[in-house]
Amino acid sequence: MTQFEQALQRYKALVNEFIFANLPSGHEIPEIGSLYEMMKDYPSRIGKGLRPSILLIFCRAFGGSEEKAINTAAALELFQNWIVIHDDIEDGSELRRGQPALHVKYGIPLALNAGDALAGKMWEFLANNRKVIGDQRALDVIEQFLHMYNETTAGQHIELSWVKNRRWDLTRQDYFNMCRRKTAWYTCITPAWTGALIAGADGKHRETIFKFGTEVGVAFQIQDDVLNLAGDEKKYGKEILGDLWEGKRTLITIDLMEKASPEEKRFLTRTLDMPRHEKSGTDINEMMKMIRRYGSIESAIKTSVELATNARAIFADIEKDIDRQQCVIINEMTEFMINRTF
Amino acid sequence: MTQFEQALQRYKALVNEFIFANLPSGHEIPEIGSLYEMMKDYPSRIGKGLRPSILLIFCRAFGGSEEKAINTAAALELFQNWIVIHDDIEDGSELRRGQPALHVKYGIPLALNAGDALAGKMWEFLANNRKVIGDQRALDVIEQFLHMYNETTAGQHIELSWVKNRRWDLTRQDYFNMCRRKTAWYTCITPAWTGALIAGADGKHRETIFKFGTEVGVAFQIQDDVLNLAGDEKKYGKEILGDLWEGKRTLITIDLMEKASPEEKRFLTRTLDMPRHEKSGTDINEMMKMIRRYGSIESAIKTSVELATNARAIFADIEKDIDRQQCVIINEMTEFMINRTF
Repeated sequence: MTQFEQALQRYKALVNEFIFANLPSGHEIPEIGSLYEMMKDYPSRIGKGLRPSILLIFCRAFGGSEEKAINTAAALELFQNWIVIHDDIEDGSELRRGQPALHVKYGIPLALNAGDALAGKMWEFLANNRKVIGDQRALDVIEQFLHMYNETTAGQHIELSWVKNRRWDLTRQDYFNMCRRKTAWYTCITPAWTGALIAGADGKHRETIFKFGTEVGVAFQIQDDVLNLAGDEKKYGKEILGDLWEGKRTLITIDLMEKASPEEKRFLTRTLDMPRHEKSGTDINEMMKMIRRYGSIESAIKTSVELATNARAIFADIEKDIDRQQCVIINEMTEFMINRTF
Repeated sequence: MTQFEQALQRYKALVNEFIFANLPSGHEIPEIGSLYEMMKDYPSRIGKGLRPSILLIFCRAFGGSEEKAINTAAALELFQNWIVIHDDIEDGSELRRGQPALHVKYGIPLALNAGDALAGKMWEFLANNRKVIGDQRALDVIEQFLHMYNETTAGQHIELSWVKNRRWDLTRQDYFNMCRRKTAWYTCITPAWTGALIAGADGKHRETIFKFGTEVGVAFQIQDDVLNLAGDEKKYGKEILGDLWEGKRTLITIDLMEKASPEEKRFLTRTLDMPRHEKSGTDINEMMKMIRRYGSIESAIKTSVELATNARAIFADIEKDIDRQQCVIINEMTEFMINRTF
C-alpha cells in the first residue's frame, strides 16, 4: 500500500466520521426522519474518499492542519454525494457503489428532493467554517465552491445536451472541454487549491495547481471511462458497460466513432442513441467487439498516461515550496488516478 | 392599487433588473450558452415578486436601505425560481406561470441540472453580499437561507411522501406542519426576518416575526389551494384543477376526506392516487362536485381569514418599533395574501 493509499484510508474514515456526526438523525415527524435517512444513504455507501483526501493532503502540503480543513473536506464529500444523486437521475443510471441508485430505491421525486436537501448540508458545513477559520476565509472557501459548482453544472449540461441532441460529431477537444468542467473541477482542481488556500498558500501557486488539477482530473475521468467497460463491477461499484447502455460520450466512444467505417458509424449512432430499454445485450456486445478491434480502450489509456506525465511535470515546479512527505503522496496520487481499479 | 401593490410593482422591477444584470449570458461553447438561457427561463416569466418585496419592505421597516438588501432579495427570487423547477419535476406539474414547465420544454435531465445551476447563482448572490454588507452579516444572511432551505426541503419531502405512500389519514394539523415548512418559511418567515436582520433589527423581534410569518405564509398557501380549484387560469398561471390531477394533499382535499361518506372516500382515495394520465376529466368533475357540496373551499377560505387575523394581531405588538408607512404596507400585504387572484 502506498503512502497515498494509507492517507486515503485514514482521511476517508475521518471525513465519514465528521459527516455522520453532523448530518441530522431522527425527527418527531416520521417523514422528516425518513428524509434524513435518505440523505445518509449515499454517504453510507462509503466511496473512495478521494476528493476530501486531496483537499486534506494539499492543506498539509502547504503547512495547514487537518482540523482547519475538515469542515471543507466533508463539504466536498457531500458535494460528490448529492450531485451523483442528481446525475444518476439525469443519466438514468441504475447502480451506484454496488447498490441501486437512490431514485431506483425511492422514485425520482423523493430522490431529487433528498439531493437538494443534502446540497443544503454542504453549504451548512461551509457556513460553519466561520467558527473554524473565521468569516473571511469561510467566504473565500465558499467562493471556491461556487466556481466548482458553476463549472460542474456547465459540464453536466454539455454532456446531457450531446445525448439529447444526438451529437456524435465530437472531437477529443470537445471531450476535454466537457470533462474538465464535469469532472476535473470537483475531483481535483478545487480540492487541491481549496486545501492550499485554507493553509494560507500564496496566490502565485494558484495557476500551477489549476493546471495540475486539470490534467489529473481529466485523467481520472478517462480511467473511469476505461473501468466502465473493462473493470470489475464488484470493485468499480457502477454498472459495467453502463456507459454504452446510457449512450454516453466518452473518450472511448468518441475514438470509436472517429475510427469506425460509415456503416459501423450508422449502427453505432443508431444503437447508442436508443433509449436504454430498447437496446439489447447483443447490441452492446457488438459495440464492445468494435471497441476492442479498434483499440479504443488502449488509446484512452495512452491519453490518461500522457496527462499524468504532464501533471507530474507541472507539479515539479512547486515541489520546492511544499512539504516533502506530502509531495511524495501527491505524486503517488497522480499514479493512482490512472491505475486505480475502483 | 394599495401601497403594498405599488411596492410590489416597484420591487419586482428592481429585483428583475438585478437578476438579469447578474445572471450570465452567452458563451463560446454553445451548450453553455444554452444552459444560461434555460437558467433565465423561469425568471423571465415574471412572477409576483412577492418574496423579495417582503424582504425589502421589512428591511425598510427596520430602517435599512434597499441597496443593502437587493442582493439578498434577488437571491430569494432565485430560490423561488430554482426550487419550482425541481418541484415541477417532482409533482409532475405541466404549467408554470402560464407556460409549459421547464422539464416539459427540455426534458427532465436538462431541467433538473438547470435548477441546480440556478441554485448556485442564488448562493453566489449571497456570497457577493460580502461587498455590500460585510463578511459577518453576509454569513448571517447565509445562515438564514440555510434554515429556510432545510425547512423547505423537509416540507417538500413530507408532501411527496404522503403522495407516494397514499396517505389520506391526515389532519388539519398535519397539513399545517407540512405547509409551514414547505411554504411559510420561504414565502414569509425568512423574507421578513432576513430583511429585518439586514437592517440591524434587534433579536427580540425575531420570535414575533417568525410567528407572524408562519400565519401569513400558511394563509398564502391556503389561498393557493383555493385558486388552484377556483381561480382564473390566465391570472393564476398554473393549471386550474392541477392539484386534483396531481393528487395533492391540500387543506381542501383533507377537509373533503374528513366530510365524505365511506363510499365517497373510497372513490376519492382511489381516484386521487391514480397516476395523472389514468385520471379522466369526468373523475375530476365528480370530485369538484363533492368539494362544492361539502363546502371545502369555503372552509379553507375561513381558515385563511383566521390566520390573517391572527397575523395582524401578532404584528400589532411590534408596530410601535418600526417605520409607520411600512406598517401600513405590511398590513395591506397580509390582506393581499388571502385576497389575491394570482
